[in-house]
Amino acid sequence: MKVGFIGLGAMGSAMASNLISAGHAVTVWNRSPEAAEPLVSLGAKFARTADRAAQGDAVLSMLANDQAVRDVMLDGGLLDAMDPGTVHVNHATISVALAKELAQAHADRGLAYVAAPVFGRPDVAAAGKLNMLVAGNPGVISRIRPLLDAMAAAIWPMGEEPTHANVVKIAGNFMLGAAIESMAEAGALVEAHGVSPADFLGMLTQTLFAAPAYKVYAPLIAGQRFKPAGFALPLGYKDISLALAAGDAARVPLPFASVLRDSLLETLAQGDPEVDWSAMSQTARRRANLTAT
Amino acid sequence: MKVGFIGLGAMGSAMASNLISAGHAVTVWNRSPEAAEPLVSLGAKFARTADRAAQGDAVLSMLANDQAVRDVMLDGGLLDAMDPGTVHVNHATISVALAKELAQAHADRGLAYVAAPVFGRPDVAAAGKLNMLVAGNPGVISRIRPLLDAMAAAIWPMGEEPTHANVVKIAGNFMLGAAIESMAEAGALVEAHGVSPADFLGMLTQTLFAAPAYKVYAPLIAGQRFKPAGFALPLGYKDISLALAAGDAARVPLPFASVLRDSLLETLAQGDPEVDWSAMSQTARRRANLTAT
Amino acid sequence: MKVGFIGLGAMGSAMASNLISAGHAVTVWNRSPEAAEPLVSLGAKFARTADRAAQGDAVLSMLANDQAVRDVMLDGGLLDAMDPGTVHVNHATISVALAKELAQAHADRGLAYVAAPVFGRPDVAAAGKLNMLVAGNPGVISRIRPLLDAMAAAIWPMGEEPTHANVVKIAGNFMLGAAIESMAEAGALVEAHGVSPADFLGMLTQTLFAAPAYKVYAPLIAGQRFKPAGFALPLGYKDISLALAAGDAARVPLPFASVLRDSLLETLAQGDPEVDWSAMSQTARRRANLTAT
Amino acid sequence: MKVGFIGLGAMGSAMASNLISAGHAVTVWNRSPEAAEPLVSLGAKFARTADRAAQGDAVLSMLANDQAVRDVMLDGGLLDAMDPGTVHVNHATISVALAKELAQAHADRGLAYVAAPVFGRPDVAAAGKLNMLVAGNPGVISRIRPLLDAMAAAIWPMGEEPTHANVVKIAGNFMLGAAIESMAEAGALVEAHGVSPADFLGMLTQTLFAAPAYKVYAPLIAGQRFKPAGFALPLGYKDISLALAAGDAARVPLPFASVLRDSLLETLAQGDPEVDWSAMSQTARRRANLTAT
Repeated sequence: MKVGFIGLGAMGSAMASNLISAGHAVTVWNRSPEAAEPLVSLGAKFARTADRAAQGDAVLSMLANDQAVRDVMLDGGLLDAMDPGTVHVNHATISVALAKELAQAHADRGLAYVAAPVFGRPDVAAAGKLNMLVAGNPGVISRIRPLLDAMAAAIWPMGEEPTHANVVKIAGNFMLGAAIESMAEAGALVEAHGVSPADFLGMLTQTLFAAPAYKVYAPLIAGQRFKPAGFALPLGYKDISLALAAGDAARVPLPFASVLRDSLLETLAQGDPEVDWSAMSQTARRRANLTAT
Repeated sequence: MKVGFIGLGAMGSAMASNLISAGHAVTVWNRSPEAAEPLVSLGAKFARTADRAAQGDAVLSMLANDQAVRDVMLDGGLLDAMDPGTVHVNHATISVALAKELAQAHADRGLAYVAAPVFGRPDVAAAGKLNMLVAGNPGVISRIRPLLDAMAAAIWPMGEEPTHANVVKIAGNFMLGAAIESMAEAGALVEAHGVSPADFLGMLTQTLFAAPAYKVYAPLIAGQRFKPAGFALPLGYKDISLALAAGDAARVPLPFASVLRDSLLETLAQGDPEVDWSAMSQTARRRANLTAT
Repeated sequence: MKVGFIGLGAMGSAMASNLISAGHAVTVWNRSPEAAEPLVSLGAKFARTADRAAQGDAVLSMLANDQAVRDVMLDGGLLDAMDPGTVHVNHATISVALAKELAQAHADRGLAYVAAPVFGRPDVAAAGKLNMLVAGNPGVISRIRPLLDAMAAAIWPMGEEPTHANVVKIAGNFMLGAAIESMAEAGALVEAHGVSPADFLGMLTQTLFAAPAYKVYAPLIAGQRFKPAGFALPLGYKDISLALAAGDAARVPLPFASVLRDSLLETLAQGDPEVDWSAMSQTARRRANLTAT
Repeated sequence: MKVGFIGLGAMGSAMASNLISAGHAVTVWNRSPEAAEPLVSLGAKFARTADRAAQGDAVLSMLANDQAVRDVMLDGGLLDAMDPGTVHVNHATISVALAKELAQAHADRGLAYVAAPVFGRPDVAAAGKLNMLVAGNPGVISRIRPLLDAMAAAIWPMGEEPTHANVVKIAGNFMLGAAIESMAEAGALVEAHGVSPADFLGMLTQTLFAAPAYKVYAPLIAGQRFKPAGFALPLGYKDISLALAAGDAARVPLPFASVLRDSLLETLAQGDPEVDWSAMSQTARRRANLTAT
């Protein structure tokens, strides 16, 4: 298929490269054009402007946050420039409020729109093994399905309402944050009683909690290794803020998310934004006055 | 081996029956003697008093809570009556404070003591598939190892200090509670936005959260099925209280445990103590004014 | 003095009427012009456009929230239209972010700017007994001091940085919310133990807590009288959100504000936005399953 | 009247001295007898055993905590030794559970019992200006009223059920703790934005929060002066634990008390138990990474 890809951060670049590998004709665009070079060397065409990438069968976008999506899609005029025959697949993790606004903006212009946020870090994206949530018109989705299959290990349909995929992504990230905080607190508790957090979390991640969410973060927490960040602290804070905002919009109190917000904020106050968000486990240790290893 | 088993609730009975099946000579005792009948029919001997079960190679106990352990072991005089050649293996989930007191009481009397709390519900115990935490003297543990193997899928050594196994059990149950609360809150969030909690939790328990802790509770939460209780609400409340008490003893703030305490307390205030502790998910829904299905 | 007044809600109208009573020449403007009528009958001039009220010695504004301030002052072009000889006194409770933006916008245009948020409900404003926080250039403040004295029982200088007065107002409202929540929880606690909340709060508001913050809300909480709202629930929720946003901007975790947010959100979820924000005390009672009186 | 006084800490000594000044015949007892000396020099008789102080018209007790009350009254046999003609007035702050047990123990023995916990620090007690909560049989209370009047500025009747006075005292102390935490958080918030906490709290304690609860603690928080402790950190922690236990007994979630518990625990973890409980404000500052003044 003939596709465009907009947003070439670590995630977007990995996803676009899988589209190229699968034989699709890919045109890429990024605000900073240097990021396009490795993909061009793999065979991608380079678009000087975003709207030249938004042509053909579909344009996929993986922009960093609400602001970037708003800048490119709405204020930047990309939606106004698009052809109704081109499907827009939005992979970004965005707020529920913007998700609703975007869904409406596409509908107003008669554009086909699919929300397809993903779970997985850049290495998972590079391996084409993402878990992808997909919501939108079923006919449209089946048309672009080969593109999704090139990037994902599994496709999880979330209905026809695009916003639903965004809510699920936000709620899932909130659950990830809660898993980290619970390991952080429980780890501090056993450590203060003389038990090695590595032994404790090692046992649990082979038994009751033998799942990726825990297996990824347990060694970081037990080993106090927070750099390089797999998912940086400010991004984690942003995602928990998205969960709280989604709760706000639908009047759903989320006391665990409130605790997470405070733990992440306290971790940010320590002054190093380049750590992984699992560094909030240091905050649990500091509260208990546990000394650094 | 010649062993006694004290405490024949759902867990204890299942564990004792596996000892019998493995060919050990088992003498059982329970405060209410009726509970012994099925085991007697499987070949166990019935002891009229607890101390008659506390003879031979080892006595295993699976009593319900701190009070029961204190009544039988300390105030009831069982430790005073025991032979130093008989190893005491304590499977109960008890407070850190009592765990320390018990370890000291055994040491004072020259008794061999192993703490061996377990993860697993009664059906897991019946299948001999428990995850068992074990702490105590390594020589003693290796002597009684055949008994443990008859009951457990895996044995997780937690060092020589018996109390450590109790702390790990408490911290693990706290993490289970946190998993439930995070599913409860995230489920209410997606539900309020029009997404089925079953779809949401179904996806996550096949991906990031594909682990027993989540797979057991997700269907209960999504289906709002809280009876019969696999783990009753008051027991869950007791276990979170044990975590908070362990945090108190070692000066470790546990904000997630504080939230759990409040959620469980609010659930208890609704008046039905016979529900599973995952009924705290109804509290998350009620706070958001989501109507019953 | 010759002054304009912009924003004629309950608070603004009461404040403007005191300026008229004090003999100042007042020109008023409001988005919905009907609100100006009572003031015109007291002697105010009516301005058809906001900029006609922003002339003379000073223009005072008491707009409802960030959005209204932004609409009128920035997007509506009022600042661009103003004469550098006219001092702008902003009485609104606004976010720290907008406060900073406004301070900069005045500085960029060479306009004299004073932030002067107030504590007090409409009846206090009508009596000219507000507590007014004032921050800005001291020379400018002394020039307009007669205007402030006509509206306030006391003027509390908060330095030269206008934003500081806004932060103090937000932090003070947060403390008010915390006072309400603490009465709500403590009241539910004593009620559940058979003590009348009225007796309990009556005693405390004559002793340790004999202060306006408590004396105003204790009878509402004890009597469960939440209508008409002195300060409506959505406004209280907005103010706690401003405190959390201010904490966010400066990296200050505020666990009490997080609890307040959840309590207010849960109260909003019950569906009646026209109650006073002290109706969050009903949420404390409902959590404990206390039946309505 | 002929009265005994048991428990001569800072509070008890001050209260007993006022009874002596008022002309009552006072016999005193304390576990460490040295504490009795200043009172003997004022004219008190010294009792070698507690039961010799528990004779005459009334015996008043001001013991430190549950354990001390239990040791002296129940396990120590004082209640068993008492004459039914002697009224017991219990001034201690104790748990609801012990309060109920004590009320029953007196009833079982036909003893007259009045619960009379107090608000006020030692200097207030010395001045005879305590606020005293009183619950019990009205006839009994009126008989001993002259004793109470010698110690208190005001007597607050809380009905016939002694436990009610204890619940009110616990709930009141919880509200005090909440006042401190709200000043701590709000103070950290304004400080992080460049406003002096002293200016901020100074303004509020002259206006909305002009009450003893705030006036006592605001200068300690703003000045970071936590020694000598007016009310020591471990006592504050104990009192918040009593509030949580009272909530537990009646199924009342208290999210503010949970936050307080965590803040106090984190403050205790810093290692200096001799600070005032308002030192929890340092915890709010440390979380925000505000440097020491």
